[in-house]
Amino acid sequence: MSSTVITNIATLITNDTSLGDGSPLGLIQDAAVVIDGDRVAWTGETSKAPATDNRVDAAGRAVLPGFVDSHSHLVFAGDRTAEFNARMSGRAYSAGGIRTTVAATRAASDEALEANLTRHLAEALRQGTTTMETKSGYGLTVADEARALRIAAAHTDEVTYLGAHVVPSDHAGDPDGYVGLVTGEMLTACAPHARWIDVFCEKGAFDGDQARAILTAGRAAGLGLRVHANQLTRGPGVRLAVELDAASADHCTHLGDADVAALAGSRTVATLLPGAEFSTRAEWPDARRLLDAGVTVALSTDCNPGSSFTSSVPFCVALAVRDMGMTPDEAVWSATAGGAAALRRTDIGRLVPGARADLILLDAPSHVHLAYRPGVPLVTAVWRGGVRVA
Amino acid sequence: MSSTVITNIATLITNDTSLGDGSPLGLIQDAAVVIDGDRVAWTGETSKAPATDNRVDAAGRAVLPGFVDSHSHLVFAGDRTAEFNARMSGRAYSAGGIRTTVAATRAASDEALEANLTRHLAEALRQGTTTMETKSGYGLTVADEARALRIAAAHTDEVTYLGAHVVPSDHAGDPDGYVGLVTGEMLTACAPHARWIDVFCEKGAFDGDQARAILTAGRAAGLGLRVHANQLTRGPGVRLAVELDAASADHCTHLGDADVAALAGSRTVATLLPGAEFSTRAEWPDARRLLDAGVTVALSTDCNPGSSFTSSVPFCVALAVRDMGMTPDEAVWSATAGGAAALRRTDIGRLVPGARADLILLDAPSHVHLAYRPGVPLVTAVWRGGVRVA
Repeated sequence: MSSTVITNIATLITNDTSLGDGSPLGLIQDAAVVIDGDRVAWTGETSKAPATDNRVDAAGRAVLPGFVDSHSHLVFAGDRTAEFNARMSGRAYSAGGIRTTVAATRAASDEALEANLTRHLAEALRQGTTTMETKSGYGLTVADEARALRIAAAHTDEVTYLGAHVVPSDHAGDPDGYVGLVTGEMLTACAPHARWIDVFCEKGAFDGDQARAILTAGRAAGLGLRVHANQLTRGPGVRLAVELDAASADHCTHLGDADVAALAGSRTVATLLPGAEFSTRAEWPDARRLLDAGVTVALSTDCNPGSSFTSSVPFCVALAVRDMGMTPDEAVWSATAGGAAALRRTDIGRLVPGARADLILLDAPSHVHLAYRPGVPLVTAVWRGGVRVA
Repeated sequence: MSSTVITNIATLITNDTSLGDGSPLGLIQDAAVVIDGDRVAWTGETSKAPATDNRVDAAGRAVLPGFVDSHSHLVFAGDRTAEFNARMSGRAYSAGGIRTTVAATRAASDEALEANLTRHLAEALRQGTTTMETKSGYGLTVADEARALRIAAAHTDEVTYLGAHVVPSDHAGDPDGYVGLVTGEMLTACAPHARWIDVFCEKGAFDGDQARAILTAGRAAGLGLRVHANQLTRGPGVRLAVELDAASADHCTHLGDADVAALAGSRTVATLLPGAEFSTRAEWPDARRLLDAGVTVALSTDCNPGSSFTSSVPFCVALAVRDMGMTPDEAVWSATAGGAAALRRTDIGRLVPGARADLILLDAPSHVHLAYRPGVPLVTAVWRGGVRVA
């Protein structure tokens, strides 16, 4: 294993509060990072950097932990461009929503699904996402859900079983029967391929009792818990997530005071997904309210072909700052350490000795530029596990 | 000169209404483009493409005219990151606004200004901008304005003299004296380096009478006219632009019915700059109202370090669709043919025989994806004047 030092970093974000300026970002100016094998070995001021085999000159630019995108739906097939175009053009369109993608996904070959997944993972990696969770949820049969998870698990460690995305049309008359399948045969087939179970707890999808049954069964099968919660209405999802100690309650757009208080008193992260509000012209989640209450907030893309077809974490950072009341510092923390917290990981999202050497170099002198220069592809180099991959 | 055919284009946008589907986009499916030297020689269906020296396979992706960004401020020096960060973090900051950049620009060397300009032009080019207008306006002395324009003219044909950006602090007590300078000695020094003259007609900058004097003097010196109009208030800028047959009225955020009617009855393009509203959290311009009235609309970045530090036309397209009532088709037209109209050019912004071979290949099957996939860097290849430059 060889060692590399990156020097002349104008702004280094470590997310280590014991370092640098003492802020949550652990910001060090005129900094260096030493990578040894697949791990971070050292961070500090450039003038104090130890000798290494190789040297990279950051030339006054910024280095951050790689983005941790803890919420995406990338095992899919089919094209919903016309549906998006009609929605944004004010034209009627008889869209099938998630079910459109379910039909196309079921009909696709393994190879087609895998090619689509790896294409989007690579696209995200080039934009700085070094860890990307992804979900099933467009199969909704035992075989199709297990297949989606098997394919996902070949390409990412963070795989989530979302058999409870919607009740598929072939079970439309029997939602409780479908819950039985999700918690029974489908769970048995899926659990070996997944780390997490998730449920879309929302009017029109699964109610609180159904969601509780699904999450409880998942936990009994050894899976960690995540919840699609309070995206469209003030439902029971967030409080259920907290009650069951889910790692994350995702969306959190429509919250009552009790929801905010529950999150604030818990380990459950609120994962905000501004790409969804952007692409559906919906109300923004109020990140400021959550942060002021002491809630841990993560930012992710929700990348999926229906409601948020962006793979760009920098875009989500810019939206969070512009429209959700986050400061640039908070948004960058949430897109790195926040995402790691939402996956209950301590080895990523931080640049501290022993952490995975997942880091990005921006073509800009500071992390603030991710919000200051919206839409500009600023990520100019990416290391994952110590290997330069972009 | 060699010829090249790009084949297997799923969606070709020509902006030639006589071609394809008859829409303003002149959209052709399963298309090809032939480039001969620096010009477009032919467009049509792949099966009918003539033989050429070279062949590029678009592999089912989309080809569009290069973006025409008709409004930017790229001759500047200095760093306003802290000002942006403070504004977005809700902290007080004694910002000098444009005057901060003026001081830094005056203090910079020619080499520093040129390096900053070319860096941003290259960044924009990688994102598909094959024509980029840029302005002076951070010098505000005879020598500094002429220097800015000389540097700009070495790198783009579309150069605008904006001595009338603000009244500089060294003329604070004598705005009419400054107008005399802008229309006199400064104009004489600047006109040889510029194609256009522009004025910031706004409360706190130049009023209608001052703007009229500046534009009239510029026209007498052989310059075309552009106006920063109605960005912050319902001022006289738009109607003045129409009255003087300016090529473009830029911003157009605060319009009365008379402003819209004036634009609709004129050749003056309304250039909308959503990056500015994004980065200052301001009210969006109402593109729908303008389009429904029959106004020609362009979309540009306003790239500058104070109020809109994006160089991304795709980002502006996504904002225009999400927040300004444009359809994806309209936004793409405005970012290409619209920008060309705002510069009174017919050789760019269209892919028709004889036009400049300025075109981009998206990593997506259609132009709609520029709005459908916000923030994702989809521009994967760029030709300018027939030469592959990215």
